[in-house]
Amino acid sequence: MEEFVDKNPLKLVARDARGLALDAVTAANSGHLGMPLGCAEIGAVLFGDKLRCDPSHPTWINRDRFVLSAGHGSIFLYTWLHLLGYSITLDDIKLFRRTGSITHGHPEFNKMLGIECTTGPLGQGIANAVGIALSCKKMGAIFNTSKHKIIDNNVICLCGDGCLQEGVASEACSLAGHWKLDNLILIFDSNNVTLDAELSRSQTEDIKKRFEAYGFQVFRANGNDLKIFANEFDAARRSKQKCPKVIICDTTIGYGIDEVAGTNKAHGAAGVKFSDTAKKRLGLPDEKFFVSDTTRNFFKKRQQQCQKLYSKWQKKFQKWQKENPVLYLRLTKAQNSEIKWSRFSTVEYDKMSTREAAGKVLQELVARDRDILSGSADLFSSTCNYIKHSKPFSCTNLRGKNIYFGIREHAMAAICNGITYDGFFRIICSTFLVFSDYMRAAMRVAALAKLNVIYVLTHDSIAVGEDGPTHQPVETIASLRCIPNLDIVRPADYDEVVGAWQLAFSNIDRPTALILSRQDLPKIATSFGDRTSRSAVVNGAYIVRKERDVLRVIILASGSELNLAVKCAEKFPYVRVVSMPCMEAFERQSEAYKNFILPNACRCRIAIEAGIGMPWYKYVGIDGKVVSVEKFGFSGQSSDLLKHFNMTTDALEDVLNNFVNNRKI
Amino acid sequence: MEEFVDKNPLKLVARDARGLALDAVTAANSGHLGMPLGCAEIGAVLFGDKLRCDPSHPTWINRDRFVLSAGHGSIFLYTWLHLLGYSITLDDIKLFRRTGSITHGHPEFNKMLGIECTTGPLGQGIANAVGIALSCKKMGAIFNTSKHKIIDNNVICLCGDGCLQEGVASEACSLAGHWKLDNLILIFDSNNVTLDAELSRSQTEDIKKRFEAYGFQVFRANGNDLKIFANEFDAARRSKQKCPKVIICDTTIGYGIDEVAGTNKAHGAAGVKFSDTAKKRLGLPDEKFFVSDTTRNFFKKRQQQCQKLYSKWQKKFQKWQKENPVLYLRLTKAQNSEIKWSRFSTVEYDKMSTREAAGKVLQELVARDRDILSGSADLFSSTCNYIKHSKPFSCTNLRGKNIYFGIREHAMAAICNGITYDGFFRIICSTFLVFSDYMRAAMRVAALAKLNVIYVLTHDSIAVGEDGPTHQPVETIASLRCIPNLDIVRPADYDEVVGAWQLAFSNIDRPTALILSRQDLPKIATSFGDRTSRSAVVNGAYIVRKERDVLRVIILASGSELNLAVKCAEKFPYVRVVSMPCMEAFERQSEAYKNFILPNACRCRIAIEAGIGMPWYKYVGIDGKVVSVEKFGFSGQSSDLLKHFNMTTDALEDVLNNFVNNRKI
Repeated sequence: MEEFVDKNPLKLVARDARGLALDAVTAANSGHLGMPLGCAEIGAVLFGDKLRCDPSHPTWINRDRFVLSAGHGSIFLYTWLHLLGYSITLDDIKLFRRTGSITHGHPEFNKMLGIECTTGPLGQGIANAVGIALSCKKMGAIFNTSKHKIIDNNVICLCGDGCLQEGVASEACSLAGHWKLDNLILIFDSNNVTLDAELSRSQTEDIKKRFEAYGFQVFRANGNDLKIFANEFDAARRSKQKCPKVIICDTTIGYGIDEVAGTNKAHGAAGVKFSDTAKKRLGLPDEKFFVSDTTRNFFKKRQQQCQKLYSKWQKKFQKWQKENPVLYLRLTKAQNSEIKWSRFSTVEYDKMSTREAAGKVLQELVARDRDILSGSADLFSSTCNYIKHSKPFSCTNLRGKNIYFGIREHAMAAICNGITYDGFFRIICSTFLVFSDYMRAAMRVAALAKLNVIYVLTHDSIAVGEDGPTHQPVETIASLRCIPNLDIVRPADYDEVVGAWQLAFSNIDRPTALILSRQDLPKIATSFGDRTSRSAVVNGAYIVRKERDVLRVIILASGSELNLAVKCAEKFPYVRVVSMPCMEAFERQSEAYKNFILPNACRCRIAIEAGIGMPWYKYVGIDGKVVSVEKFGFSGQSSDLLKHFNMTTDALEDVLNNFVNNRKI
Repeated sequence: MEEFVDKNPLKLVARDARGLALDAVTAANSGHLGMPLGCAEIGAVLFGDKLRCDPSHPTWINRDRFVLSAGHGSIFLYTWLHLLGYSITLDDIKLFRRTGSITHGHPEFNKMLGIECTTGPLGQGIANAVGIALSCKKMGAIFNTSKHKIIDNNVICLCGDGCLQEGVASEACSLAGHWKLDNLILIFDSNNVTLDAELSRSQTEDIKKRFEAYGFQVFRANGNDLKIFANEFDAARRSKQKCPKVIICDTTIGYGIDEVAGTNKAHGAAGVKFSDTAKKRLGLPDEKFFVSDTTRNFFKKRQQQCQKLYSKWQKKFQKWQKENPVLYLRLTKAQNSEIKWSRFSTVEYDKMSTREAAGKVLQELVARDRDILSGSADLFSSTCNYIKHSKPFSCTNLRGKNIYFGIREHAMAAICNGITYDGFFRIICSTFLVFSDYMRAAMRVAALAKLNVIYVLTHDSIAVGEDGPTHQPVETIASLRCIPNLDIVRPADYDEVVGAWQLAFSNIDRPTALILSRQDLPKIATSFGDRTSRSAVVNGAYIVRKERDVLRVIILASGSELNLAVKCAEKFPYVRVVSMPCMEAFERQSEAYKNFILPNACRCRIAIEAGIGMPWYKYVGIDGKVVSVEKFGFSGQSSDLLKHFNMTTDALEDVLNNFVNNRKI
């Protein structure tokens, strides 16, 4: 193979990476060849030279982050992580896309492997990178001292045309420009092709101008030329312009498979049938999963370079640690004790909206944990999650804890995923419940990647009133409850709100959505005291009003309907009222607990919710009754809406009476 | 009031419109004052002069369309439609936001009133306008002749900062530029304020450059100067540049309420308390809902102008009609007969994916209805909804029926809403089911506004396999079933696919989602013949396999699981199998039909679906069993996934056996 050894050893490295990608996709007979082949030189320059990371310390806090937004090109990431020395073996590469392997069809978040984000749903990876860049900038602002810069890394994101067509990328890039995230380098694999066709079928925009409009510094390179790309990358990294950078890289998709290269046929696995000739053409031997000794030796040296980078930083870090013991404790969270929820204030009130209650509790919370951030898609004043002791985050106030995302819900959620991937800050973000539809795709990834983002979703029902059906969630709570590994918590009053926050903060590996009312709700007394139970919320469901006679009927409710159920039950001694603020948490309880709350013998069950009733049938069955809102609402006074949709004590009493009479209880 | 009569009568008109907005929001004590006050001059120029429409012919096909993307400023729209003479009375204005009134909190689609779109969820209105503009361009390409241009209108869309921050607007504007929609004029109310704060808190981008990047011609005007805005509007409309236009209008939010004008406090109803002084300052009398005689007289003349515009066009149209009788029949759809579904081909096959089946049926369908369009978010090759007898739609081939939306799902759905608001074409659009999350916010509006968009959503379960959990819908079907007025149809084989299309096309006032498999599925034989029932799909559910003994167990299934149920039931003579391709359609059937399919007496029911089981509990109850996928999937071979999640005949048989044994059937 010696004839291939250029003055630039990366040429052979790129060739071998192409070979691995070809063999892996061929073996799997599935996957995407276009991008790994087209971006081999970009991979070689980054992983073979530029990335400041260390495979032997994958969680190094000052490592450069590499985010593959074009997640379908996953074999690109696995190949390069393997060559660089991360814990992805050649056998793993051979098992690409197979059941049980770690080389999944699309990258799944795993820091130990060097996989910084779960990507695949296009566009979101760019927003993730923006979130990580924001997190790193904020950490730098907190922990760097005039003497020691312990955080000065870069976040490097590789994306394709598909990513940039998605609106979430536009939103995120606008924010990156606004925040002047000069640690962010976006590498745009501009191959002029999408899955279906040449790019010109769906796009004519001027990408350079678009990025200039966002406030990026724009570079351009031939992405298949090692030297040119390396130069432009250096220029981007060294640039003193206080703004994010983008390098538009012209590449040939499917480079090496001449039969399809440069066309949309190269995007997926269609090139597999030309794999043998492509390998020959690239100068690769017949051997499958071949990596030349030259390449292996090259990466041995590269690993030493990586270790040196880490050691050098480690020395700096140790000095910093000695000189800044308090900062060190904060960084390692060594002083963080568990939040003492029982010490949260007792509040006297008659009526309060749960959004207001949540805002009050949040202020106590942030006094106990200083690394909580809180953002909003332009609705702080309505969603009440502004951290009052802090200021807005901005490029001139990186320490500000309140993040103004603008009216960009999707980017907000995906950026919060990025912040959470990075892992230091705990992030809360907010919008109206009905607009969670805009960010659902990113909430799904949070649930899948086990990210503990907290969503504050207010204005949770038809009681929104005058704003009308476009702003009244009806189906939203039910549809969010469908997402696996996402806790939906709908507290009924102030004390349940405290419990809801506790549940959210105890969720280490899943996101939580707090579903909160716009309207005031009364304080609820229970059979056991004059307040709802804070601690029981964590169990998902608990008895609020115990039957005073033999149990015959159970009413289940959450949020703004719980007080209706409690009031209604006063007249019926044989009725139990169960508050079920979180179905998902309830499902995690023991069968014994579940049967204690909802005894199997009692089949006369009524559920009430000011929304689609679908989730409740599991608990009330065919013989039960779900009092719900099965249609879109209308514009009008909230009292009219609640009456129209039977969300009143009187209506519930009628249902209960009918229910009881029909069954001759 | 004579002192106010300028040389430009629109000055008084604008003042009176401001007065109406102030009084309406004050009376409602809710709503948004900022934009109606800030844009009064824009309203005066458009509704008082420029819009080519006729209140006495609100459905005139060549009318200029006005879309209020900033839907929260609804009182702006109502005020101007009222003044211009649409069927919104002063009493309606007085009842702004009240229960039962037609002046809803946010505009709700009603052509007769001049309300072209349901808006409020930000950004989508821009995409709706792009869809209407596309529809008008296409109609022009079909119906205009060299002699008579019967379609040459403009689509004018008023949007704010919030709209332009949303990603859906970026996607839609990029497409508008790509398609060179020169009939589109976007008016950007640039007031530098959002709900929460001054715009600079969340944005620094260069809007002009951004629009130039998309391929728009950019104009700039002082939006509070009647003459300057009118001049720029004329320039935009008259421009010969073959591209969409945007007029960036600098305005003062809340103009007239000096106490809050120009700040975020002016956005909502907070200015109400200064209403009286504001009115005085504007030269308005104390009288509520005052409209000066001058203004009334002005609009009488304007109505005559409108009627003349219409009459002139009507004369041209009559000539066109005489000379083009065939085109006229097509335009009026006079020749369209009902689609004869019974005449669709019978296809012989053993196995076929339902996406492929749907693609085949579509080709027959488009041969019967020439005004069907079909689009895809870059997945035509996977979703199989390309219309083979036609070409791609483009700026040089406006007649092409296949719309390449690029990887812009949200804009796709919102643009399809626009096409459907316009009403001539029937539009189908496609992506992978899992990515319906990206367009959910627009699907919701389609359901709310009763738009009959058809979504082709393929790759409908964990059987997607190797692409892994980011691409495997698990919760998606259940969560879509939550949306009111949206039919979710999941056919099991070719013949059910024909029925699914029939159901979709029979849905005149609701959207329909076809949920289709990636993988091949066998042809299913029933108790009644060797094929599933096409016509029964329209009922939502029907008996596929009748019990051969006394009915003891019902298995409910849809789509790819139906064949498992049928196979499993062969061994159990007392089992009935019900195919339930569409729960929503089933719910619309009579109680008698429902009880015929699912007899109340038979409570031993099993449902199987390769997704979250939530929707099925309504039918199987507490005593039944739902065989479902309650977690995210994983990357691997689809056969491994199906086995892991018990989506096999064997597993279903085990469940059935256990079920039967436990209940001693």
